[in-house]
Amino acid sequence: LQSKLPTVGTTIFSTMSQLAQQHGAINLSQGFPDFDCPPELVELVAEAMRAGHNQYAPSPGLLLLRQKISQKTQQLYGHACDPDLEVTVTSGATEALFAAIAAVVQPGDEVLVLEPCYDSYVPAIELSGGVPVFVPLRFPDFSVDWEKVAESLTPKTRLLIINSPHNPSGAVWKAADLEALTRLSEQHPFLILSDEVYEHMVFDGQPHASVLTVPALAQRAFVVSSFGKTYHTTGWKVGYCIAPAALTVEFRKVHQYLTFSTATPLQHALAHYLDHPEHYLSLPQFYQQKRDLFASLLQPSKFELLPCAGTYFQLARYRQISKAPDVEFAQWLTKEAGVAVIPVSVFYHNAVDNGVIRFCFAKMEETLRAAANRLSRL
Amino acid sequence: LQSKLPTVGTTIFSTMSQLAQQHGAINLSQGFPDFDCPPELVELVAEAMRAGHNQYAPSPGLLLLRQKISQKTQQLYGHACDPDLEVTVTSGATEALFAAIAAVVQPGDEVLVLEPCYDSYVPAIELSGGVPVFVPLRFPDFSVDWEKVAESLTPKTRLLIINSPHNPSGAVWKAADLEALTRLSEQHPFLILSDEVYEHMVFDGQPHASVLTVPALAQRAFVVSSFGKTYHTTGWKVGYCIAPAALTVEFRKVHQYLTFSTATPLQHALAHYLDHPEHYLSLPQFYQQKRDLFASLLQPSKFELLPCAGTYFQLARYRQISKAPDVEFAQWLTKEAGVAVIPVSVFYHNAVDNGVIRFCFAKMEETLRAAANRLSRL
Ligand SMILES: CSCCC(=O)C(=O)O
Ligand SMILES: CSCCC(=O)C(=O)O
Repeated sequence: LQSKLPTVGTTIFSTMSQLAQQHGAINLSQGFPDFDCPPELVELVAEAMRAGHNQYAPSPGLLLLRQKISQKTQQLYGHACDPDLEVTVTSGATEALFAAIAAVVQPGDEVLVLEPCYDSYVPAIELSGGVPVFVPLRFPDFSVDWEKVAESLTPKTRLLIINSPHNPSGAVWKAADLEALTRLSEQHPFLILSDEVYEHMVFDGQPHASVLTVPALAQRAFVVSSFGKTYHTTGWKVGYCIAPAALTVEFRKVHQYLTFSTATPLQHALAHYLDHPEHYLSLPQFYQQKRDLFASLLQPSKFELLPCAGTYFQLARYRQISKAPDVEFAQWLTKEAGVAVIPVSVFYHNAVDNGVIRFCFAKMEETLRAAANRLSRL
Repeated sequence: LQSKLPTVGTTIFSTMSQLAQQHGAINLSQGFPDFDCPPELVELVAEAMRAGHNQYAPSPGLLLLRQKISQKTQQLYGHACDPDLEVTVTSGATEALFAAIAAVVQPGDEVLVLEPCYDSYVPAIELSGGVPVFVPLRFPDFSVDWEKVAESLTPKTRLLIINSPHNPSGAVWKAADLEALTRLSEQHPFLILSDEVYEHMVFDGQPHASVLTVPALAQRAFVVSSFGKTYHTTGWKVGYCIAPAALTVEFRKVHQYLTFSTATPLQHALAHYLDHPEHYLSLPQFYQQKRDLFASLLQPSKFELLPCAGTYFQLARYRQISKAPDVEFAQWLTKEAGVAVIPVSVFYHNAVDNGVIRFCFAKMEETLRAAANRLSRL
């Protein structure tokens, strides 16, 4: 059997979480909270199931949920989207990313990818016969080099994948980035896939630079978000995609044959819980406190933290502790120091190793303290 | 924007369910129960959520659930499969079908499809650049013409998709079919994708002819099943795929980037509920009673029922009522007679119209009675 993804192994998130478990390490690798979701949300699911909402949801998603998403999008980003024609609920943001790529990338099409990037983009492009074209983000601030992006555009460029707040770096876009992208878009008809799953984790009073705030961008973009990130329910696998009607038509064609629909009782619960904006409005502060706590706890350590403006990830240089490649260091840290992390080189197609690892700080205070204790001993 | 699926519209199941709702018709179109799942299962989900099982499951599925699937497969089909290496939980059988196809079908590969067939197979093949090769099932008994299958094999044939119990026809394979397939497989290295989601709905005391009962077939097959069908929870979207380790490696590569994982609390609940085999052991009788009831209720009508040996679908000829094409008749039936059904021609790439529609009888007795009342008046 000839593999269709010969260079792909098990995703780093599974690998590191498993290693963490084997060695009883504190797991700051794969991004998920170790605290629970709001208990009201759990009871809403139970109610929905008891009320008999256990059969197929409509393939585009429960109408009530799509309506609430549309209202929220209007309020937060001033973007009006039609729940019937422009919003699709998916089985996690991962499905949305895959469906968007599969919907528009034809064999031979080029897709611009800003590296480092989330590890599902490139396999999805390859399964559609597309050609990833890599544009490195600047190191160490992970800002976009718009000249390099412009130089990388060709007549074959079909899609540009962007991601702010940015995983793994924690960098966030500024207004100037949206402006640069808007100017580029005036010169080239690329489509945009904007991964905004960390939209509610932007710190220091900054706004989230959603492409939905710019009509010229929104009209050619798939914007993907995630209830798992926002509601501490990564295991529920409910995400969504907002895109103009013509793109949504193609997106839904793929979605209906990829998963058809997403767990009905979870959609019911989320639809009702969206009536509580205070939850997501408090998230920036909630995660900023964790960021700050974790940073202060690592102060005495030899790790050198990079700036973190968003997401629940913190990058750190470790060269004062070890000269090992980051993959080796991450394994050593898991096995010997009892803290699992993600090496950042895995997010580059050519394994660029800057001696940086990623911590997930979506953890209880006691977890962060315990991890920092172990890390400060090195 | 050039569509990648130019001939695909909204799936017939969404279309007919929506039409049913608009016209207040009794919905015997899309296949799902109008009765509820076992209440214990609902409480198991609530317990799992309250116990904090709300973050990512392992990408291959919860280990306990994979173990229970493996035990069940051993007991029912005498097939030993390794939960670590050969079982993957998916977001519905639809995702499993898509992932299996995406994992092994390369551009230009031929995939044999027995028609009529479920409508997700062909778009999934096309998105992988594969070429569907259609082999018609015999009409009206929907048996496999093994000579035609043999004639359709070429050096380019990568995959053969099979489905018993068969949607939409309700036909089931006999031991002779497994034997014929085994002989063919000795002459040609095709892989097999076996859609067995209706495995627990085989009637009249017949066994389910799973490819897992034949080691020579199991060693080259993806076998897909569905908890939604078995537990009356079509809306939970939990299915799975059993395949030998080498195929599972490729399957999981795709799965991890398609959805990554499936709703954790639902997996917990199903894992525990699999300790109650009495549920699925009673399903054949449960659905056979519904089949027999529905058939007897339609006795006075002008519909001519075709044999139904499995699934929860009943085919019927309607030529004594109307000469209209089946798509038109199904719409008319929904709007004018108040019963929504599926026209069978949509399951053929060339829209073969035998004047046959499909009823779903996974409904409460009162629903079947009310529908039969309306249908008998025609
Ligand atoms: C789907 S597992 C990966 C979770 C995540 O987004 C991350 O750790 O980067
Ligand atoms: C995913 S909706 C279709 C349900 C079904 O299997 C059918 O009606 O044939």
